[in-house]
Amino acid sequence: MAISPGSTLRTLRARRPLVHQITNYVVMNETANATLALGALPVMAHAPQEVEEMAANAGALVLNIGTLSEHWIDAMLLAGRAAKGPIVLDPVGAGATHYRTETAKRLLDELEVTVVRGNSAEIATLAGQDAEIRGVEAIGTAASAAELARDAARILGTIVSMTGPTDHVSDGERIVAISNGHELLAAVSGTGCMSTAVTGSFLAAKQDEPLEAAAEALVAFGVAGEDAARTAHGPGTFHAGLYDALYNLDPDTLDGRAKVTE
Amino acid sequence: MAISPGSTLRTLRARRPLVHQITNYVVMNETANATLALGALPVMAHAPQEVEEMAANAGALVLNIGTLSEHWIDAMLLAGRAAKGPIVLDPVGAGATHYRTETAKRLLDELEVTVVRGNSAEIATLAGQDAEIRGVEAIGTAASAAELARDAARILGTIVSMTGPTDHVSDGERIVAISNGHELLAAVSGTGCMSTAVTGSFLAAKQDEPLEAAAEALVAFGVAGEDAARTAHGPGTFHAGLYDALYNLDPDTLDGRAKVTE
Amino acid sequence: MAISPGSTLRTLRARRPLVHQITNYVVMNETANATLALGALPVMAHAPQEVEEMAANAGALVLNIGTLSEHWIDAMLLAGRAAKGPIVLDPVGAGATHYRTETAKRLLDELEVTVVRGNSAEIATLAGQDAEIRGVEAIGTAASAAELARDAARILGTIVSMTGPTDHVSDGERIVAISNGHELLAAVSGTGCMSTAVTGSFLAAKQDEPLEAAAEALVAFGVAGEDAARTAHGPGTFHAGLYDALYNLDPDTLDGRAKVTE
Repeated sequence: MAISPGSTLRTLRARRPLVHQITNYVVMNETANATLALGALPVMAHAPQEVEEMAANAGALVLNIGTLSEHWIDAMLLAGRAAKGPIVLDPVGAGATHYRTETAKRLLDELEVTVVRGNSAEIATLAGQDAEIRGVEAIGTAASAAELARDAARILGTIVSMTGPTDHVSDGERIVAISNGHELLAAVSGTGCMSTAVTGSFLAAKQDEPLEAAAEALVAFGVAGEDAARTAHGPGTFHAGLYDALYNLDPDTLDGRAKVTE
Repeated sequence: MAISPGSTLRTLRARRPLVHQITNYVVMNETANATLALGALPVMAHAPQEVEEMAANAGALVLNIGTLSEHWIDAMLLAGRAAKGPIVLDPVGAGATHYRTETAKRLLDELEVTVVRGNSAEIATLAGQDAEIRGVEAIGTAASAAELARDAARILGTIVSMTGPTDHVSDGERIVAISNGHELLAAVSGTGCMSTAVTGSFLAAKQDEPLEAAAEALVAFGVAGEDAARTAHGPGTFHAGLYDALYNLDPDTLDGRAKVTE
Repeated sequence: MAISPGSTLRTLRARRPLVHQITNYVVMNETANATLALGALPVMAHAPQEVEEMAANAGALVLNIGTLSEHWIDAMLLAGRAAKGPIVLDPVGAGATHYRTETAKRLLDELEVTVVRGNSAEIATLAGQDAEIRGVEAIGTAASAAELARDAARILGTIVSMTGPTDHVSDGERIVAISNGHELLAAVSGTGCMSTAVTGSFLAAKQDEPLEAAAEALVAFGVAGEDAARTAHGPGTFHAGLYDALYNLDPDTLDGRAKVTE
């Protein structure tokens, strides 16, 4: 199937899928607002008493380990087992501490994760390759980005969506490169987490083609970043403009703006 | 007494009441900033060691079940019993999971709640009527909104403040309809929670007339939404503009802009 | 050594120190974005399983008691003992409840805190002087601000960075007064916490001169506030503009804009 972010966005806005997110404290508002601005319905819930019910009713489940603690991991496992739709994992800071690395691996082992969306250091860490991470920021990796995404997808048995100056999405065979986006995205905390929420939203709208959906999500998010940059004077106005841009994304012109190579 | 959002806002800004909020992770910054921009003083505290002391010193207590867990419910109960001022409950997602529905009912049973501020699905759920909710968004309800608000107020024994395209505030007898607001409010996550915080702030400034205070709060918040929409290009700039608008609300012109019918 | 916010900012942006923050739910996104916009790398982590590893790898540790609970205090103690760089404590709401006051004192007793950054009521409370606080806002204090900062620094055995209409930074001997800033900073929730994060970032870049670094941080943050106020229409656009301004701070002109007296 072709990559058509415009048609998937049209479907998403018609269906308004519920996207259940168990995510970190830093970005909860941001990922909720990105999801809502795009056209899907975000819901945050992490109590063991309700995560299974919520996850079972959602079109996608997004798990993000950015501010981990034990009972949140328990909630992720409960929700992940109950989920009926695709699961997207954001291994924030994998490689920065052993706890994060081990938790990301445990979630990958115990759940049927569809897509792992991370930066190059996080992906390399999970794939057992050399990586340098400081806090939650990737500094550098050994392998070429395209090969790293493909190899990691094979090793992890998931689709890998690896963002950076150029994004790479791979299922272990195909590699889709996306060069939409803007450098100000790196100046706002939580834009990676937002791209994960957008990925969950696109997956919910196109469940049978997760590779395409994951790539389309990064096109849409990157184009929104390009639009937001036009009137921004720095990361604050860019951040506000990013929600405007997600809300104003035009399905009719989106495919034409995609910078995708495969 | 007449509904006069302008005069209550004037009182609020002169007294700067402390509004203690035990709310969800998604909107804490947003409700704090809405409260502060309006002119009241927000404070967030949820530890069992301090909630009673904080609640007892506050002009109003706002309870919001948006990202529930057991120890937060315990904190709400402790704070609610210690509160000396009005209590506003926001039953976020009641109807979406059994846990949320039961928790909202328990808080209503065990505490002297003054106002329940929710959307139509949440209110209908608590009143035992048919409702459709997806995540935290109301999709539709069976009854007419005005009747639902009135009946729910009778059943719950509280004032009901039900927001939607038109808001309805009722004490079970009187029904006040407010049609201020703007559709972009539905495109920003947490605006319902903000309206609850604004309700708590108005109640703190006008404790002896909670029906009027609750209606005035929705007028003020709706007018701020109208002002913010004027220069917004989407939900991000609208969101930033909403705090500007709350801060710039003019008590002298507010009554004249109220779209209230009773 | 001279106070030169410009040269420290230049160092900070070249080194991009990792600033580990254990802070409150209300401002996590805000302090992360302020840190990132300035040019340092924020990371939030609070699990006992990882705080020591994260703190040991960070250039500075920021502790903030804004939404306390027991396991967060445990995390602060673990992280503080493992930290190899300077520790900045923000005693949010000390004086508002006994729990906050006692917790701030305990952190000061058990950890090697380099700088305490707070408002006058919080600082006076910790120094055992009269203060009036409502929620987390200082209302008034008995002593003159400059004397209070100096006396508190002696009593607490740390550098005290006390913000207000005029800021005062003291090591118990020297007193540096900073009058940069703008009144809109008081209309946005969490700007105090942001100034603490900026303080941590400057300390990480200038570890051997913490008094100077703390004063420089307040100059930089205050100048950013002045810049943000220029195009703001209220607290919402000011808030967005504040990140723009931190990002756009010019090291070459910053020293000339400092309003510092000693």
